[in-house]
Amino acid sequence: MMISDADGYLERTFLSPGSIRATDLIVSWMQDAGLRTWVDQMGNLHGRTDTANATAETLLIGSHLDTVVDAGKYDGSLGIICAISALKVLRIKGKLEKLYRPVEVIAFSDEEGVRFQSTFLGSAAIAGILPPTALQISDKSGITVRDVLRENSFDATYEGLVQVKYNPKSVWGYVEVHIEQGPVLETLGYPLGVVKGIAGQTRLKVEVSGAQGHAGTVPMLMRQDPMAAAAELIVTLESLCKYPDEFLTYDEQCGFFGKESLAGLVCTVGEISCWPSASNVIPGQVNFTVDIRAIDDEARKSVVSEFSNQVHRKCEQRMVNCTIEHKHNAEAAHCDLELTMQLKHATSSALRKMPSDIHGDLPILMSGAGHDAMAMSHLTKVGMLFVRCRGGISHSPEESVLDDDVWAAGLALLQFLDQHVNQ
Amino acid sequence: MMISDADGYLERTFLSPGSIRATDLIVSWMQDAGLRTWVDQMGNLHGRTDTANATAETLLIGSHLDTVVDAGKYDGSLGIICAISALKVLRIKGKLEKLYRPVEVIAFSDEEGVRFQSTFLGSAAIAGILPPTALQISDKSGITVRDVLRENSFDATYEGLVQVKYNPKSVWGYVEVHIEQGPVLETLGYPLGVVKGIAGQTRLKVEVSGAQGHAGTVPMLMRQDPMAAAAELIVTLESLCKYPDEFLTYDEQCGFFGKESLAGLVCTVGEISCWPSASNVIPGQVNFTVDIRAIDDEARKSVVSEFSNQVHRKCEQRMVNCTIEHKHNAEAAHCDLELTMQLKHATSSALRKMPSDIHGDLPILMSGAGHDAMAMSHLTKVGMLFVRCRGGISHSPEESVLDDDVWAAGLALLQFLDQHVNQ
Repeated sequence: MMISDADGYLERTFLSPGSIRATDLIVSWMQDAGLRTWVDQMGNLHGRTDTANATAETLLIGSHLDTVVDAGKYDGSLGIICAISALKVLRIKGKLEKLYRPVEVIAFSDEEGVRFQSTFLGSAAIAGILPPTALQISDKSGITVRDVLRENSFDATYEGLVQVKYNPKSVWGYVEVHIEQGPVLETLGYPLGVVKGIAGQTRLKVEVSGAQGHAGTVPMLMRQDPMAAAAELIVTLESLCKYPDEFLTYDEQCGFFGKESLAGLVCTVGEISCWPSASNVIPGQVNFTVDIRAIDDEARKSVVSEFSNQVHRKCEQRMVNCTIEHKHNAEAAHCDLELTMQLKHATSSALRKMPSDIHGDLPILMSGAGHDAMAMSHLTKVGMLFVRCRGGISHSPEESVLDDDVWAAGLALLQFLDQHVNQ
Repeated sequence: MMISDADGYLERTFLSPGSIRATDLIVSWMQDAGLRTWVDQMGNLHGRTDTANATAETLLIGSHLDTVVDAGKYDGSLGIICAISALKVLRIKGKLEKLYRPVEVIAFSDEEGVRFQSTFLGSAAIAGILPPTALQISDKSGITVRDVLRENSFDATYEGLVQVKYNPKSVWGYVEVHIEQGPVLETLGYPLGVVKGIAGQTRLKVEVSGAQGHAGTVPMLMRQDPMAAAAELIVTLESLCKYPDEFLTYDEQCGFFGKESLAGLVCTVGEISCWPSASNVIPGQVNFTVDIRAIDDEARKSVVSEFSNQVHRKCEQRMVNCTIEHKHNAEAAHCDLELTMQLKHATSSALRKMPSDIHGDLPILMSGAGHDAMAMSHLTKVGMLFVRCRGGISHSPEESVLDDDVWAAGLALLQFLDQHVNQ
């Protein structure tokens, strides 16, 4: 069974009909695990087990229920299911009542940012870092976040948004299980790994405007063609991120940023459109998105700045007009050392119970993908556990994980939860 | 008043609601000019005046009523209105009955090919060069030409299509008035010019398929990114058409094709799309259109072939899969010398009646834009008259003509028609 907004492929965006149906299904699973459930004013689903100790800080465990377009099955969902499953095992073992702090599973309503081009609508609201202006963000057809909230009978006011925010003092920490979405664990031959940090990310929207005209009559040398300009910019972006040292100067002695800071630098153009979009018309405008990620925030900013320089230089040469809009900026997030060590300990202990023969120390990875943990790091200490996925493929129906690896992840989370149970 | 399918900009595609309303309006104008009207099985509107001489060949005058997306007002419509206006003047002067051959104005239903990516659905059917398979061509949402015809209560059978075709023996010739859509007349300071031929055209659809993946986790050097590949191909296409002698070898002695054959070569990418189209996903597929035009058919074929070579070479290097589909091929069309001389004579005579002070010989131009005259040249001899337009701009709301130039065009057509009147 696939809960999707589309026929034939997986797509669930912020509060879409598919997301609502997914929420309803997860509610039933949470209740089955003995959790008290509610949906907050940003569409996040919560499932909580309380304790006698009213002053104890809450352990949050979560991931997101939305997906990209034509997504795989595990990105997001796996983390929610792992958390609920672990709590269900605690319930069956009669340990739910013995937890000495409240545990709350959260299924976030928006992490991918597909519809509104703004990631973490759900977790950012809980972390209290979502600006009130987020309600006015509109999708491609002009419908705003507020419209979508109202359509689904949410409050959709600034006050409603404020109520979603958690008090940092009431929270102990945040833990997330997620597929790696990259090839490292598979290469190392490890089913699981702990995460030390998440790469920072900049999302840009580039608009190139030129002179719209007839494809047959405007001589090549008289054109101000935004399509050719956009193509040149996309090729330039690729070169910049493939061979950053050919573009950027850096000085390790002055502590600016070193070659290592650029390791893992990735740049992507995932969307492009043109106007008026007819094969016999030189477009008047071409828009495309840019996604730039790096582990080192300074290195990322240098790449963004160099790309902007290149855009302005090349657009001037071509006599087209270019604007760059910053849609999203997220600093790299660092996982809490102590929490990560606890997760590592629990995971190593879980892996020892697995039949497989794994040697060496558990890998500690950086994440090139953004996660709700990034937003949650503004609220509380965070830790993440990565699950190996086939070929490192994600954001694609080809996404795949081994049953044994999922089993190990659930076991690791259970082991981790055990540390919060009165023995 | 603007008859459009869209709010705020001009768009009329094959048999769209806007096109139907435009047809109805032109019917009233034709009837007002004393013409008998009917719509054929491909949606072309005809307005005819018959003569006593039943065996006389018909003079056809026409242009198209469809438009591109976000079009200008004059591309197509001007030719229809000029023809009807000239015939209305003949009627007022009592000369309609004195014509010694039937004259028929045709408003073609599809020249731009916006919806079905196949130009000249209307005129090609009349010229008898539209293959029966054209009924199965589908638009982006899978609706076929046949579906659209049926929706509008047309026959939509092969037999219906055959009936639209004219017998070459019943036709004397075809004349079309059209805006130049290029900058030559404006540069020369001439309101009108006659056309000696229309550039040939190739339309391609290029599909680039790569490895879809997560924008944050696939290292740059491991990507098979169809977006970067498509961008490189678009930049290559531009270079090829801007500086063809750097890519193509030619040999004037062997009569292959000379440098002059490449004059006026133009290449355009007017449409691009990607899948799944999300800013944080490396696309799995990118499609774009290519429009290549040249006056010399051999030169154009060499450019298409060189582009194909470049596509296959670059896609191989990038380990992405590229396919090139030929959507449309039109050989260059040459206007009839005698008919062109008659048009030139009529035009020069009309310009002498204008107050403006124009010296020198009437310009004789090549057309970089395709026209219904291309299709009609397969049925009968053709001649074309170009009207100056501001900045050479077309396929844009910026399209503009001078009132005086339109007046001169109408006068020229009237002068031409006078040659077919018993004096």
